[in-house]
Amino acid sequence: MAARYLEEFSVGQVFETEPVTLSEDDIIEFARRYDPQVIHTDPEGAKDTYFKGLIASGHQTIGVAFAQFIRLGLFAENSLGGPAMDEVRWTAPVRPGNALVTTVEVLEIRESKSRADRGIIRLQFRTRADGLDVSSFTTTTFLRRRPTEDAA
Amino acid sequence: MAARYLEEFSVGQVFETEPVTLSEDDIIEFARRYDPQVIHTDPEGAKDTYFKGLIASGHQTIGVAFAQFIRLGLFAENSLGGPAMDEVRWTAPVRPGNALVTTVEVLEIRESKSRADRGIIRLQFRTRADGLDVSSFTTTTFLRRRPTEDAA
Repeated sequence: MAARYLEEFSVGQVFETEPVTLSEDDIIEFARRYDPQVIHTDPEGAKDTYFKGLIASGHQTIGVAFAQFIRLGLFAENSLGGPAMDEVRWTAPVRPGNALVTTVEVLEIRESKSRADRGIIRLQFRTRADGLDVSSFTTTTFLRRRPTEDAA
Repeated sequence: MAARYLEEFSVGQVFETEPVTLSEDDIIEFARRYDPQVIHTDPEGAKDTYFKGLIASGHQTIGVAFAQFIRLGLFAENSLGGPAMDEVRWTAPVRPGNALVTTVEVLEIRESKSRADRGIIRLQFRTRADGLDVSSFTTTTFLRRRPTEDAA
């Protein structure tokens, strides 16, 4: 999809990402660096825990959800950075091989009061693993407005 | 440090992590998979953006902050998983080579109403890059209580 300006989104729109899968190696490699806990790094040790086996770091789950949205190409060069993420919830574990699909809903759109060239868009992410809800979060992003003819 | 039970933390305690640095390669490698935007993946392309050069993905910044806390060893096998993260804020960019140091403050401790073996601890993370505030977030974690003699 082509990159969109702020005006080309509308509240209530929903986008769905391509599915993505994390292998056991993907989960371990991420966790060694970013979340070094037995449940994420040690398939044998994880069997003796509450989770009864290896699960993906929650940071990895939200990372792949966000990346799959970026890969849709809707923001691209129109994004001017994201200052906030809120209400991150992890409701069920993600296992190696689960197919992760994320829906992204436009929650809010508003113009910037101080900068005429941009606005703010808030998105609700919801990720399912093999159809089961596993995580959700909202993001806030500064997004370019369509240039006016005067400015072009 | 040794792993602690819920009772061994108190509200207002502050822990500081060891510093950690992200190289240009670290930033690019993470972003290709988890945040594929020019500002995070392309040092040349990033020069022509609002950020005037490569910056780390915000997801990577909070990941390393969390990992450095885990490496202190305070939670270890006493963690029973984290259901939530809130109020993630990115206030300034993180560049290759910046020394990232995170302080972690205990915000709240409470016993579980439904499970006698655990409680809930909420932590406030604040990360500085070469002394400048760059990001913050809170986490919620289920943590084991000290086993009672009856249960031992």
